Amino acid sequence: MSNAIRPDIDLAASLFDALSRATRRGRGIVRDSYGAGEQAAHDIVRAAASTMGLEISVDAIGNLFMTLSGRERSAPRIIIGSHLDSVPQGGNYDGAAGVVAGLCVLSAMRRAKAVPNYDLSVMAVRAEESAWFDIAYLGSGGAFGLLDPACLSIPRSDNGQSLELTLKQQGFDPQPIRERRRLLDPSRIRAYLELHIEQGPTLVARGLPAAVVSGIRGCKRFRNARCTGEYAHSGAVARPYRHDAVAATVAFLHHMETVWLQHEEAGADLVLTAGELFTDAAVHGPSKIAGETRFVLDIRGLTEATMEAVAAEARAAAARIGAAYRVHIDLGATSDSPSAVMDSHLRSQLMSLLDRPFEMASGAGHDAAVFAKVGIPSAMIFVRNENGSHNADEAMSLDDFAVGTRALLELLMNFPF
Amino acid sequence: MSNAIRPDIDLAASLFDALSRATRRGRGIVRDSYGAGEQAAHDIVRAAASTMGLEISVDAIGNLFMTLSGRERSAPRIIIGSHLDSVPQGGNYDGAAGVVAGLCVLSAMRRAKAVPNYDLSVMAVRAEESAWFDIAYLGSGGAFGLLDPACLSIPRSDNGQSLELTLKQQGFDPQPIRERRRLLDPSRIRAYLELHIEQGPTLVARGLPAAVVSGIRGCKRFRNARCTGEYAHSGAVARPYRHDAVAATVAFLHHMETVWLQHEEAGADLVLTAGELFTDAAVHGPSKIAGETRFVLDIRGLTEATMEAVAAEARAAAARIGAAYRVHIDLGATSDSPSAVMDSHLRSQLMSLLDRPFEMASGAGHDAAVFAKVGIPSAMIFVRNENGSHNADEAMSLDDFAVGTRALLELLMNFPF
Repeated sequence: MSNAIRPDIDLAASLFDALSRATRRGRGIVRDSYGAGEQAAHDIVRAAASTMGLEISVDAIGNLFMTLSGRERSAPRIIIGSHLDSVPQGGNYDGAAGVVAGLCVLSAMRRAKAVPNYDLSVMAVRAEESAWFDIAYLGSGGAFGLLDPACLSIPRSDNGQSLELTLKQQGFDPQPIRERRRLLDPSRIRAYLELHIEQGPTLVARGLPAAVVSGIRGCKRFRNARCTGEYAHSGAVARPYRHDAVAATVAFLHHMETVWLQHEEAGADLVLTAGELFTDAAVHGPSKIAGETRFVLDIRGLTEATMEAVAAEARAAAARIGAAYRVHIDLGATSDSPSAVMDSHLRSQLMSLLDRPFEMASGAGHDAAVFAKVGIPSAMIFVRNENGSHNADEAMSLDDFAVGTRALLELLMNFPF
Repeated sequence: MSNAIRPDIDLAASLFDALSRATRRGRGIVRDSYGAGEQAAHDIVRAAASTMGLEISVDAIGNLFMTLSGRERSAPRIIIGSHLDSVPQGGNYDGAAGVVAGLCVLSAMRRAKAVPNYDLSVMAVRAEESAWFDIAYLGSGGAFGLLDPACLSIPRSDNGQSLELTLKQQGFDPQPIRERRRLLDPSRIRAYLELHIEQGPTLVARGLPAAVVSGIRGCKRFRNARCTGEYAHSGAVARPYRHDAVAATVAFLHHMETVWLQHEEAGADLVLTAGELFTDAAVHGPSKIAGETRFVLDIRGLTEATMEAVAAEARAAAARIGAAYRVHIDLGATSDSPSAVMDSHLRSQLMSLLDRPFEMASGAGHDAAVFAKVGIPSAMIFVRNENGSHNADEAMSLDDFAVGTRALLELLMNFPF
């Protein structure tokens, strides 16, 4: 390990600044998956990689690879990746930090004329967020042929345009998704490494700059839940005659909170969130009983058993409470993302590279879960971040970023251990 | 009482048809208070009154009076009124039925050459609904100088334009409201009579065409309630660190339902409704904890004591539950409409004119409450209506309308008793 080599943090500062300027809309960041915002981010990192002299390639569905060639070019490579899309009105670091970290590492190695044993590719993964198309891991899942081809008809949440048409309009090819054809061969990938901001308050609360991730929570989400009752005058209808969609939805969500508490008390890892909930602005009114609500119920945990038990109870409660309130609660299907365990060898190596080693589970999903799923040894580094993620107020210091990125660089310089 | 005189139901049929054709937008009716929809309705009934040869006048704030002159023109008159505005996507009968009934009665008397003892004015009241400007009874309250002048700055709920500017643009004069000047002298009004569709299911359930109203429920409404938390990633934040606006709002509204049940068990007259409830579509997301909700809490009952007790408990619960969920629940001020008792003499006269006499409270507010408040003997007739009101599916049969209108006609023909 060479103490002389440090990640190129000046490059990080300039890239974060360029990304913010190009994709901030009002207070927050908008890098729409397979849209203009994500593409702007790809253009920025690609230009930086060109300047550095990295090899550049883009696969059929738009994932971008920026490669520093190693001594053994025919050997399986190492991928350092994360995504460049964001949720609507998100922050500047969720996703982008991992791609920028990879480029800082390769920039440092290149400037030091350090030649790695194997090819090192920074992968800017497409469309990790499910906010635009109701499916997570589009880019990484598509790279390994894991997507259900039916996903091509998923409409973009704001403009309704299908994923297939969107891909074509961006110059990409939906055919590999339709054929479940993989674009990356897992046997040709030695390891996958991802740096990401922590999306919760744990590292802030503990006063630590970075952590190693032990595993990634899965997600089971009722994205399109709907309660249908009957609109009526708010003053003129007594309780027994009401079909009040808000009252029923409140009763349902209140019940699910008690379910959460019961699982927590039993020691299970679980979080439940209804992040969208709304009556219909075109029809509702202050003097009307609401005839409809729409909402999302997002269930996350470290085990499939817990998530499935909660989803089953949600379905039963929807039927029971819907009948009691004379409404229909239709939860719809779930969109599922499996939980994933990180590679124990990589984890312990990374732990040894932190001055104050700390390991924690990831509450959010990451592309690393997909790489782990296809059998590639995968590991993640979390960097401390104020104010959570998926909002305009994400705040990561470059000092903390440097701590995580340095661990990544040192891991790569020492590879294989 | 002359059995030969019948209300002019053909006129009613043609007026309801014209109103529907002029103001239906998609499935529902849109007669926006002090807007194009309400004005179109005023134009239709005014033209009919002109054809009938009634005297026509419009007051400074747009209330329309269509008068059949009586024998004693200097004596206090009788007003038969209701409003012509509707909620957004409302039905064809809420409000309009009362104005049409008045014209049917005057048309019948005119055709029979029956001259009433006193002037009979049909009053098309402006802006009874609070859906467009967050205040009920603008037209009748303004006519009696009862409005707080501050109401002139209330923005229209859809386009944000102030009431004052809206009045001016429609050619009306906000000055009487600013001066709390009354346009009608209560001592010059002998009685106020209002026919209205029943807005609940009671008459349908009981198989009765019409009823006499005993009293009108008041309303205390938190129109602009808001819960403010913090947006964050739905998977990455454990319960103790959450500031979840939806979870807090659900807990609050669930608590208020238990409060409702307790009052009902104690025998109080009460209905509680949250007819609008929504996260912010520009910021919320399926993988975000919601940082904000907005909602309405509408409290109605026959006594001020019950409504005040519920509002006080709502304020206490908002503080308590807000603290427990680490959010801020700001209910804001209430908009209040007092409850009102109808004139016992008029009620008993009307009861005697129904083949199957039935008396019931009104769950919704009506302009009759304002006339009663300023000391004018007031009475109301309810007509059976399917599917409730404030929605596109209001359904009143002309046969039922004729039963109520005939009682109104006979009351007037016999006046004073």
